[in-house]
Amino acid sequence: MPAHWSELDLIKHFAGSCRIDKKQLIKGIGDDCAVLHPAGDEAWVLTTDMLVDTVHFDTSWHPAFQLGRKCLAVNLSDIAAMGATPHSVMLSVALPDTIETVWLEQWLQGLASMIDEFDCALIGGDTVRGAQLTISITALGTTARNRVILRSTAGPGDTIFVSGYLGSAAAGLLFCRDKAALPAVDEQLKAPFIKRHLDPSPDVFCGSLLAQSGLVTAMQDLSDGLATDLAHIAEQSHLAAIVDAERLPGHPDLAQVCRLLERSPIDLQVAGGDDYHLVFTVKRGAEQELIDYLARHDGPPIYKIGRTEPGSGVHLLHDGESSDIAFRGFQHHGND
Amino acid sequence: MPAHWSELDLIKHFAGSCRIDKKQLIKGIGDDCAVLHPAGDEAWVLTTDMLVDTVHFDTSWHPAFQLGRKCLAVNLSDIAAMGATPHSVMLSVALPDTIETVWLEQWLQGLASMIDEFDCALIGGDTVRGAQLTISITALGTTARNRVILRSTAGPGDTIFVSGYLGSAAAGLLFCRDKAALPAVDEQLKAPFIKRHLDPSPDVFCGSLLAQSGLVTAMQDLSDGLATDLAHIAEQSHLAAIVDAERLPGHPDLAQVCRLLERSPIDLQVAGGDDYHLVFTVKRGAEQELIDYLARHDGPPIYKIGRTEPGSGVHLLHDGESSDIAFRGFQHHGND
Repeated sequence: MPAHWSELDLIKHFAGSCRIDKKQLIKGIGDDCAVLHPAGDEAWVLTTDMLVDTVHFDTSWHPAFQLGRKCLAVNLSDIAAMGATPHSVMLSVALPDTIETVWLEQWLQGLASMIDEFDCALIGGDTVRGAQLTISITALGTTARNRVILRSTAGPGDTIFVSGYLGSAAAGLLFCRDKAALPAVDEQLKAPFIKRHLDPSPDVFCGSLLAQSGLVTAMQDLSDGLATDLAHIAEQSHLAAIVDAERLPGHPDLAQVCRLLERSPIDLQVAGGDDYHLVFTVKRGAEQELIDYLARHDGPPIYKIGRTEPGSGVHLLHDGESSDIAFRGFQHHGND
Repeated sequence: MPAHWSELDLIKHFAGSCRIDKKQLIKGIGDDCAVLHPAGDEAWVLTTDMLVDTVHFDTSWHPAFQLGRKCLAVNLSDIAAMGATPHSVMLSVALPDTIETVWLEQWLQGLASMIDEFDCALIGGDTVRGAQLTISITALGTTARNRVILRSTAGPGDTIFVSGYLGSAAAGLLFCRDKAALPAVDEQLKAPFIKRHLDPSPDVFCGSLLAQSGLVTAMQDLSDGLATDLAHIAEQSHLAAIVDAERLPGHPDLAQVCRLLERSPIDLQVAGGDDYHLVFTVKRGAEQELIDYLARHDGPPIYKIGRTEPGSGVHLLHDGESSDIAFRGFQHHGND
């Protein structure tokens, strides 16, 4: 795309040029999914992601099976972020002549395993030739209309949570991509980080439980990193998000791994993408009720990382200082 | 894609590898759209098309505005072929760095004009960088559940109709693509053919009327040419389609234009793609009732081109001979 146009510019331009209001449409552009209201109590959510070889993945080190799974995971994560349950999938691929049949079969087996795991169906698509492997998936999910969780509905004084460790996929990406340049690291130590990058599991069950609890005020999935993704909630809910750096949850080995990688853990946790967990807000006072609800329903652990207040931006509190990291990520200059 | 895999092979392989059954799914892979049944009397149809620069269009001679319109038209044509009404659109684009802002704006204006013309809304999408301009559109349409027209429901003895002239877009493509090699042809003579190729209008109103009539037994849109598209109806309805070459409708100037192009009109009408009209079947004896119904509702003219009978294949009757053209197109060897 033109170098001076960001993706956000483009989406705004597109949304401004085309008609975006419509009967039966509860929410169009600007959330993880579009939300449609077919009839009765139902809401259907629709999301699409396009992945391009060498831009979003690298077939030279991303195994085909795991890539097939991940292509669907990024869409299912958007459905999880609305609190909905995945229903069905449309798959379009542009395939170069050079792609090998065995690669394609393994990729498809990975996709099929994710479709099965989340009880979806492949309902259509398109296969075409192209110079660069390009994968475009549209996923449809369903829920009750009053259970849809948007980004725009957080209130001031809400507590901010995330549904899993942050920074794992970013560390995994470094291990995969910069293999030659890195010191030798024990395979067992690297494994959970590499797994999170190559084959992330979307928090579909957690998203659905959070929506059913009735206690979550706004939600978004973590695909571009906390600094960018939480900024969407802050911007659309017209408030500031205050994040406490010391509360950011990380894998028990993240600190050790970051020392080997010569990277700051907080950098990876704040600016690293691809974790595919959920960031969400809860009315102050309802935190324990939510934690109890999740425990009663076999839900995963969740981690309190901050709060909202009147204002704007995403503010990281670290070593007694506050910096606005909205849409920008965090460049650590300390030495921890 | 691997040279030895056809698109049909790939779709069959994909459909065979992944789960394709699902509650609320009336029809998955294998028709113009997937058909979903959200609740009550409603059916929603979902289709996706991927278009790649130099494969499906050529930006060197396809004006950006018209290309924007056509990218949506090919999807709306699939919705028309189910008898449904377009509702909303998701747009994913992979944009190379070299693309010019003015081109992108004109393309988007074209897309927006088509969205407006057919009373749709843009509800989401994704913009990414890529080496080759690639456009993936998913369109959603709605109708009553008992009004959906599939490909698989034609019966033996039905009459086959098309909803517009055949071969126009194929002639237009030759004028656009092979400009330098062709003799000079009057611009006014070429115009309707070029328009049909660059900026086809999907038969959405006609498709909806045909479905409402209750008289159409099966339907499919004409994107890959009659020989291929009618073969889908024949195959899925388990019967033979018999087409009378002399009945194929063409623009009044098609014969003259084909002489200048040194091509057979029947070749273009049978094997030429991109016309985006509808091919459909009607119970024998109900033809006049359907024609009267369309006339009463300001519908377009329709053209009877043949009939179905027990058997298989698509058989073209021409000069007293019959040849099976299913999925293959027609190579004319005569001299008319």
